[in-house]
Amino acid sequence: MVDELEVVTRGQGLYEFTDALQAMVRRSGVTDGLCSLLIQHTSASLTIQENADPSARQDLERWLCRLVPERDALYTHTLEGDDDMPAHIKSALTSSCLSIPVQGGALMLGTWQGVYCWEHRHGNHRRRIAVHLGS
Amino acid sequence: MVDELEVVTRGQGLYEFTDALQAMVRRSGVTDGLCSLLIQHTSASLTIQENADPSARQDLERWLCRLVPERDALYTHTLEGDDDMPAHIKSALTSSCLSIPVQGGALMLGTWQGVYCWEHRHGNHRRRIAVHLGS
Amino acid sequence: MVDELEVVTRGQGLYEFTDALQAMVRRSGVTDGLCSLLIQHTSASLTIQENADPSARQDLERWLCRLVPERDALYTHTLEGDDDMPAHIKSALTSSCLSIPVQGGALMLGTWQGVYCWEHRHGNHRRRIAVHLGS
Repeated sequence: MVDELEVVTRGQGLYEFTDALQAMVRRSGVTDGLCSLLIQHTSASLTIQENADPSARQDLERWLCRLVPERDALYTHTLEGDDDMPAHIKSALTSSCLSIPVQGGALMLGTWQGVYCWEHRHGNHRRRIAVHLGS
Repeated sequence: MVDELEVVTRGQGLYEFTDALQAMVRRSGVTDGLCSLLIQHTSASLTIQENADPSARQDLERWLCRLVPERDALYTHTLEGDDDMPAHIKSALTSSCLSIPVQGGALMLGTWQGVYCWEHRHGNHRRRIAVHLGS
Repeated sequence: MVDELEVVTRGQGLYEFTDALQAMVRRSGVTDGLCSLLIQHTSASLTIQENADPSARQDLERWLCRLVPERDALYTHTLEGDDDMPAHIKSALTSSCLSIPVQGGALMLGTWQGVYCWEHRHGNHRRRIAVHLGS
């Protein structure tokens, strides 16, 4: 089964959508299987991170922004704004796809794991994620 | 269904093979399903990036080469050439595997997304990619 | 079919578990299919790397530790120890999931590829990996 999911973002950072994804798995009727995701953009990405302490995600965001700063003299691809080329680089360094085994109708995530859309641009966006559910 | 695909590379950079992959999906007869790829090398990787403006991919390549330079005094694994250890690091920072949902026989990529083999070595190579197509 | 696998780690570095995974594939009876893995932790990750010369993996580990040092003034998430925030960052830069096509009952890895659990913390850990095997 293939489906789509949308995550609304308002600037850079990690947006959790574990609950929406888990609900989609339930609706699909898949008990033991695999849930695969692709974000249909190259200026945002997907990641599985700790969902307990928000400071971990804030540090992650700040660290990545320091590694991949805006207005780097190296960039020639600058027409779409200062945050565009850094966003492509961040997306290449993180993940566009995730695959999560499903058991008993539940995503087999670890106790402290959440599924996130990682927005790398400043503006407001609707990020589309293609989802495949198979057994 | 499992199959294999080969991408010929001539030095560092991103080589698009979206069309060859899409053709393989068509031939497989899979309508709604999942297309999973593994590059069978550790000095090249796979990425989904913007296929509109080539400057984005050029900046990506130059940025990664600056982050992971050759002849770093840290390297002890140097027997296979100056580009060998940086290639392993670049492959670890990017992706060896991709999974792309398929709908109506088409890869569910975003409007501007292409599938690329990212070559991290200078020479000419034939990169083998294992492909699984399932429903 | 879903299953679980455990990798025992004793400090930072790459721990190969290709043989255990291949044995699980054999036991599953899957001949042509896909083997998908998720590490159920955010302070360790999964990677496919060269399994020939150990110096490549040692350089990889040292390079990543230099890129993501401990006690960086940027970190605010410090309660769980000096190696905690670097571990989250390293996990985000590498991979939590892998998908490996299977042919004739064998993982379709390249000649020199091995599957590794990449431990990013100093202590001893039992890392759980969820595995899905499908055709």
